[in-house]
This record gives sequence, C-alpha cells and structure tokens, in this order.
Amino acid sequence: MSAIEIVSRHRSYGGTVSFCRHRSRATGTSMAFAVFVPPAAERGPVPVLTWLAGLTCTHETFMIKAGAQRMAARLGLMLVAPDTSPRGEGVPDDPESAYDLGLGAGFYVDATEKPWARHYRMASYVLEDLPAAVFANFPGNPEAQGIFGHSMGGHGALTLGLMNPQRFRSISAFAPIAAPMRAPWGEKAFAAYLGPDREVWRAHDATEIVRGIEDAAARPKILIDQGLADDFLAEQLHPDLFAAACARVGYPLELRRHAGYDHGYYFIATFMADHLRHHAALLKG
Amino acid sequence: MSAIEIVSRHRSYGGTVSFCRHRSRATGTSMAFAVFVPPAAERGPVPVLTWLAGLTCTHETFMIKAGAQRMAARLGLMLVAPDTSPRGEGVPDDPESAYDLGLGAGFYVDATEKPWARHYRMASYVLEDLPAAVFANFPGNPEAQGIFGHSMGGHGALTLGLMNPQRFRSISAFAPIAAPMRAPWGEKAFAAYLGPDREVWRAHDATEIVRGIEDAAARPKILIDQGLADDFLAEQLHPDLFAAACARVGYPLELRRHAGYDHGYYFIATFMADHLRHHAALLKG
Repeated sequence: MSAIEIVSRHRSYGGTVSFCRHRSRATGTSMAFAVFVPPAAERGPVPVLTWLAGLTCTHETFMIKAGAQRMAARLGLMLVAPDTSPRGEGVPDDPESAYDLGLGAGFYVDATEKPWARHYRMASYVLEDLPAAVFANFPGNPEAQGIFGHSMGGHGALTLGLMNPQRFRSISAFAPIAAPMRAPWGEKAFAAYLGPDREVWRAHDATEIVRGIEDAAARPKILIDQGLADDFLAEQLHPDLFAAACARVGYPLELRRHAGYDHGYYFIATFMADHLRHHAALLKG
Repeated sequence: MSAIEIVSRHRSYGGTVSFCRHRSRATGTSMAFAVFVPPAAERGPVPVLTWLAGLTCTHETFMIKAGAQRMAARLGLMLVAPDTSPRGEGVPDDPESAYDLGLGAGFYVDATEKPWARHYRMASYVLEDLPAAVFANFPGNPEAQGIFGHSMGGHGALTLGLMNPQRFRSISAFAPIAAPMRAPWGEKAFAAYLGPDREVWRAHDATEIVRGIEDAAARPKILIDQGLADDFLAEQLHPDLFAAACARVGYPLELRRHAGYDHGYYFIATFMADHLRHHAALLKG
C-alpha cells in the first residue's frame, strides 16, 4: 500500500516539490498529497512536518500559497500536505454541495455514519496510509514528526497531535477551529460524520481533549496564530476557549493575536517562518 | 480615469495586498490589478515595481504564488501586478480559445489588427492607465519605478523597460520570451496583433531592441534567471540570443542559468528575493 505515483515534480529552493497519488486502504480511494523535500535530505533523513489544510482546499493549496518552502529549506524540514477529503467515483458529497461538508471538508475524523463511513476516514488516512507512503518514498525521520494546519486543518492538527504525542513531537495551528462542538462548522460536520451523540464528539474537539490530558505541563508548547480581522473568529474558531482549557490544565500554549489579519493565506504566509522555527526547535532538539 | 474600486484587501507581512478594478481608457474595458503596499509606505512614498505575468495568468497569480511580499516588505518596495489582457463583454478571444492568443495573452503590445485593435492595448495600459491609477491611490514614488516579469511578462518587462529607460530605472525577468520574432508564441501573437510585416515586429522584440540602443553600457544591469529544466527553453525563450545582442552593444546583463528548475512559480519564488534586491539597489540608490 505504500507505492506512489509522482504526478509532477518541481525544483524549489534547492529542494523539490512533488505531487503524488497513491491508493489508501483507509479511504478506499486514490488519494493525492504533496511533499517538499529540503536540500538537507541529501545528507540523511530529515524531520517531517505535516500540514492539514482547511475547508475547500486541496493537497496543492499549501505548496502554492503558504510560502513555506524557503524556510523549510533553510531549516531542513520535509513538508507533507494531504488532500482535505477523499474524492472520486463513488465518494459521496453533501447533497447540497455545501463547502463545509463532504468533498474538501473531511474534518480529519473517521466517519461512522452513512453515507460517509465507507470513504471519509481522514484520521486513519493521516495517521496510517499517508505516513506509510511518505516514509517509504521520501527520506523522512519517523522519530521527528510534527503537525500543523489551518482552520479545519488547525482542528485536525490540534486533535490528532494532542491524541498522539508519541507520534507528533510538535504542534501548531493558524486560526484553528479550536472548539468545534461549539461552532456551526463543527456541529454540522460532527453530526453528519459521527452521529447525534455529542458525547462521541468530545474525542474530536481540541478544547475537550486538552481538558483530559494528564501531566499536560510536560507537553511541548503549542503555537497558535489568530488574525483579529478574521471573519470566522467570533462564530467558528473560539481560540479563547481552547486557551482557557490549556490554562486550566497547565498545557503550554502561545496564542498570538494579530490586528488586521484575516483568515486567508496572506495571513498564513506572514507568520509561516515563525511556525517552521517552532517545529524545528522541537523536532531537531 | 484614476478612480479605482478596492475589491478586497488583505494584511500581509505588515503591509497590505489590495485587489482593484478600474476603467481603462487604453483598453476600453474594466481592468483588474493587484498592489502590495509595504509597511515603509506609512513613512512616505516608496519605489514601485511592476510585475508582468505570463500566458494564462491573471492579476492574482503573482500575489498568490510568487512569495514576493516578504522581501518587498523588508526592502520597502510597492508591488503592482496587472492582468495579462483585457477581459469582459465584447473583448474578443482566440477563435479556438488557444491559451497563447487573446484572453490571458495580451503580450503587452498595442494591437493594430482586427479584431484585437479595439481592446488589446496592453502597452498603453501598462504605461499610462495603470500607473495613473496606482499613483493616484497608493503612496508610490513615480521617480523610482522598476519593471519585471515572467515568460510573456518577461518579454513585456524587457521591451517596455528597454524602450522607456526614463520611466523604468530597473529591469529583470524570469524565463522571458527574449526573442519573440524567433519563437512560435511570439510569431503567432505578433502576426495576430501587429499584422504580417515583420519589420513592425522589431520594435516589440527585446533582442532586436537592444541591438539599436546607443550608449548601452551606461544602462543599469538587467538580471535574468532561467531554469534549465524549463520545457519551453529551447523553442520559445532564447535567452542566449538576447545575451549575445547585449554583449554586442555592451548592455550590462546578468543571465543566470539554474540546473533542474522548470518554467513555473516554484522556480520564480526560489529566486524572487534576489530580483527584489536587484531592483531595490537601483531604485533606492
């Protein structure tokens, strides 16, 4: 299951950006992902930092818009960017083709409800099939993995990162959906993918998860950046709830608020270098 | 004619990216352009560097893909990116909708032939209506203007820059169509827009123009970057012909060749900081 097809490859900052496809056992589909390999990989395995993108994005968005390759090349980090949902024949979409459910909106959970359960298994994809393909085909160091993301992908990075501290030694997020059980996007997606029982949702809500972490103060610091001109901040994101939960259990968090910045990739690119330095310090330390 | 509509505005690296529309007298249409204003503009007018994009691109491409804002913010450069052709009702396209003629393919010339002559006046647009709108609405210094571009836009930057040395004090290009009269793209576009007389074409071919420049050695150096894995290099671009013409008249040129790099924006982003430094040194000197 770890064979991949290289769809295209581009030299970038002395390294390479590769767009790849492979079969996923988790989703039962072909999946697309992108990888940036830094020049340092010529000398041996490098840390691997996985980016989870937001609603409507694909595996291409990060490599095109985030401007991360420059600093990743300098720091010697591999960057991995999966797609945001399964796609293709037989993969259901929202009946109304809403942007916040179905295609492009997998929310990084394993769906249990019809019609989603068969293919929408993005948690298993990100934790199993994606790293299997990456480590079989690119010179990554599996002992040095980090995870970050944006909006829906910030939710994914926080939840998968918090739940898998042995796997992910560093976590950060841009404008994450930090308390999805209390946000319309999260409630809609969780109800569809996970069913009506809100108790089940807790395992997929970063603010709920962090409350239950023992010895939280020993975990490595999480970095979150949030723009204050973000149209989704008040209703959908709730970083303050996440910060309050972290404070309560002593989980180290640096939440930075930036006047004037919105929800998009111009915001992300502006603070990308800081995030890459955050991960490199933890992954190379 | 210099009133503009701000379609959207995004904070970026301490400055702002604005997407704008305005009426152009030159093209007789509404035109779209993008502007990055660096933080230094808060303290007074800054140098203005105009990017001309390549075939199929729009006014959005550069701001999304080139990763230029970081270094432009640091150097205090304004960046201006016009669309690559007029668009909208009544604007003709290639009858076969080819990507290399008509919409997205204005080639930065003023067309003289039917059906193009009425709207396809991109040279006048870039030299007149665009700067009028920019300087009326953004804090640019008209005494410090530079021009650069990619592929078709590299052709535009070289030709418009070489022909207007009082206006443009700095010039650079990525993978420019440097001798369009000897390239299929250039021959097709010039025949359509300018008619069959090849003598007329010379005024729009950088390699031909540079041959006729007197006192060429006194001009500021041009920087050109070219990827050696560029699929279009052998047939369409001909930087060697341009370099030979420069050498003959003593025009200062730095032509850098990069193994492994292709024709796209991963290549452009990799060397963008060098180009911005090149322009800043000339515009701020």
